[in-house]
Amino acid sequence: MKARVLVMPRAGVLDPQGKAVAQALAGLGFAGVEAARQGKVLELELAETDPAAAEAALAAMCERLLANPVIEDYTIEIA
Amino acid sequence: MKARVLVMPRAGVLDPQGKAVAQALAGLGFAGVEAARQGKVLELELAETDPAAAEAALAAMCERLLANPVIEDYTIEIA
Repeated sequence: MKARVLVMPRAGVLDPQGKAVAQALAGLGFAGVEAARQGKVLELELAETDPAAAEAALAAMCERLLANPVIEDYTIEIA
Repeated sequence: MKARVLVMPRAGVLDPQGKAVAQALAGLGFAGVEAARQGKVLELELAETDPAAAEAALAAMCERLLANPVIEDYTIEIA
């Protein structure tokens, strides 16, 4: 089973990478980019076949390793 | 208009971050993670309101700044 985990900086947390991207796009002439935030994405291939069990396992992985819950939010998408 | 850009290492390109994640998960006792690939995700807020024009602009941004087309693939998702 394929799954995707998105880890983004929490709202209100400074995001220097996203800010740099927005400024660089403006510098390249791409007007109209009002905001940019950058996070990471993980595409995982799991042996688990039950979607609910996979989601529970992924949430535990996020809490323990993939995200820093103090400053990051995660979203789990099961394919 | 909100858009999301996913930038992943191309198939066949070495992905040491993803490999490290898969090994760390196995080390923490999460069995059943068969593969992991790590990329980056950008959430952009655009002034553009036409989806087709937004997608064209995002493709240009990916080619020029957001992705390295030699080793990375990008996916554009318009919300």
